Amino acid sequence: MTNRVLISLSSPYDFWDFGRQHAERLHTTFPEVTFLAAREADVSRHLAAADIYFGWTFPAGWIEDAPRLRWIATPSAGVDHFPVEELRAAGIGLTRGVGYHAQPVTEHALGLLLGFSRGLFLSRRLQSRSRWWKDQVAETFFDLHGQTLAIVGCGVIGIRLAAAAQALGMHVIGLRRSPPPDETLGIEWVPASRLHEALARSRAVVDLLPATDETLRVFDASAFAACRPGAVFINLGRASTVDHEALLQALDSGHISAAALDVPPVKPPPADDPLRHHPRVVLTPKSAVFSHDYMDKAVDFFRDNLRLHLNDRPLNGTVIPLPEGDRHVR
Amino acid sequence: MTNRVLISLSSPYDFWDFGRQHAERLHTTFPEVTFLAAREADVSRHLAAADIYFGWTFPAGWIEDAPRLRWIATPSAGVDHFPVEELRAAGIGLTRGVGYHAQPVTEHALGLLLGFSRGLFLSRRLQSRSRWWKDQVAETFFDLHGQTLAIVGCGVIGIRLAAAAQALGMHVIGLRRSPPPDETLGIEWVPASRLHEALARSRAVVDLLPATDETLRVFDASAFAACRPGAVFINLGRASTVDHEALLQALDSGHISAAALDVPPVKPPPADDPLRHHPRVVLTPKSAVFSHDYMDKAVDFFRDNLRLHLNDRPLNGTVIPLPEGDRHVR
Repeated sequence: MTNRVLISLSSPYDFWDFGRQHAERLHTTFPEVTFLAAREADVSRHLAAADIYFGWTFPAGWIEDAPRLRWIATPSAGVDHFPVEELRAAGIGLTRGVGYHAQPVTEHALGLLLGFSRGLFLSRRLQSRSRWWKDQVAETFFDLHGQTLAIVGCGVIGIRLAAAAQALGMHVIGLRRSPPPDETLGIEWVPASRLHEALARSRAVVDLLPATDETLRVFDASAFAACRPGAVFINLGRASTVDHEALLQALDSGHISAAALDVPPVKPPPADDPLRHHPRVVLTPKSAVFSHDYMDKAVDFFRDNLRLHLNDRPLNGTVIPLPEGDRHVR
Repeated sequence: MTNRVLISLSSPYDFWDFGRQHAERLHTTFPEVTFLAAREADVSRHLAAADIYFGWTFPAGWIEDAPRLRWIATPSAGVDHFPVEELRAAGIGLTRGVGYHAQPVTEHALGLLLGFSRGLFLSRRLQSRSRWWKDQVAETFFDLHGQTLAIVGCGVIGIRLAAAAQALGMHVIGLRRSPPPDETLGIEWVPASRLHEALARSRAVVDLLPATDETLRVFDASAFAACRPGAVFINLGRASTVDHEALLQALDSGHISAAALDVPPVKPPPADDPLRHHPRVVLTPKSAVFSHDYMDKAVDFFRDNLRLHLNDRPLNGTVIPLPEGDRHVR
């Protein structure tokens, strides 16, 4: 089994860029494997010889250029930028990154939550225009301690966030399609089918859902109506999971007291998007997974998976299992 | 020993207001003690009969109206609103509140820290005016995980903040006049005399110092110069501990990347105070100790101390020890 790995992981941000040090780490660990790093524009002409591809994206059109390809690895936590069904039909395996997104997303979610609960965004807005904004903060702040947080789509990332929220004295409801039997984490597991019940009990809601057919607009008008009055809503998952019109209406009525979105419906949002100008909305530029360790950890994760692969062991973060035997001998 | 307790703890904020439920809790616990709640304007005429005073403030002028008074208890963590030397000379004991400030201050400090580290305040400022502010966040964010936090004036509140910061993967340096011998908390204790060395190693600095002669302008131009370039400075202690001119200069040079102040030098700050308008400054309205549990916990703390007092035991939170024997029999 020859193993040629094609890597296309460039980014304008150094923390997301596959650099010389990462290449050296892989070369040193696997002297018998051939690694080739290519810019995205050059990927298709190198695909013919590639057994493994490690990259941010893989348009369906590349499949026909990749007769030997048997494994696509992406550092991303989500695979909505990959043509999953086409890859499955072509017999190409797919793995996503697991584990290293949890730390930055946890910091991001906690910062947004505390920014609302402590009146920090409110203070920042009023400090330049209000004589003294103590009354406004007093009327709207709340203690996180003792409150309930619902984490919707509570996987590896949510479990880390749950631990941090619990350390601050919060009660955490974790929602999943199929809640795990685990009771050691102190999370109150609730199946996704009982979302609205969980929302009714929660002071704050963090949406970590991936983009799938099932999660499309899970947060619609009925979900926001089910929320506790004054709830805070934070979406660090995917924009497709939220009906933003319904969210704006819930914000304007005051039923939702504040919202933060890491993922606007359109990137960048139009200049007149009311979400940009709402006093109780914070928009971050898909920065929840920003971490200076990102590529280091992504390469470590890939390295561990490559070692498993070379030993014919099952891979971590499997979305589509790898074909058995060599795909190119079909 | 008769015990008449005069209470003056009114506030426009219900969470700081001594209410009927608090009075009932004390009456029920101590049926043999007389409690009288008075508005601040009426305190002086009730002082003649008071053995104990529980209140937010006690001007030196009230001492001569209080011949029987032997103990002043305040819910505040700091006693800079009390005439400590005059009380000591008059033989009146003083206790402060300990313990229940730690939770809100920890949440406040973490929120401010994460608001800067995750680019949340920056996002909130740019979202309404920038086409897409991802580059600006990418250039300035940092992971809290793995960074060093200096907590200056690291007492009970600082120790709680340290635990929360450690749970997020931070290394904590705790500064105190006399560091405790304790090594179980995972805090790197450093004596206050080595402040500048500690600042040089810290990505973020939280000032929790009380207002005393010794802490006056501890954060002056030389302290800011000693900080690591790009450090974040957060003052949740007292305004007198900071030279705000020096802070503004350090912000303008970029040496300090961002600052948050819960306590402006003047309350409210003048409309043209440059701190109000600086893009990298967040001013909160002395809200770090806001907590909806505040008065409940303050009354519980006082109740426990009153029980100790009635049993002639030493009190918690002692600033000036109580006189031995009855003061009014002098």
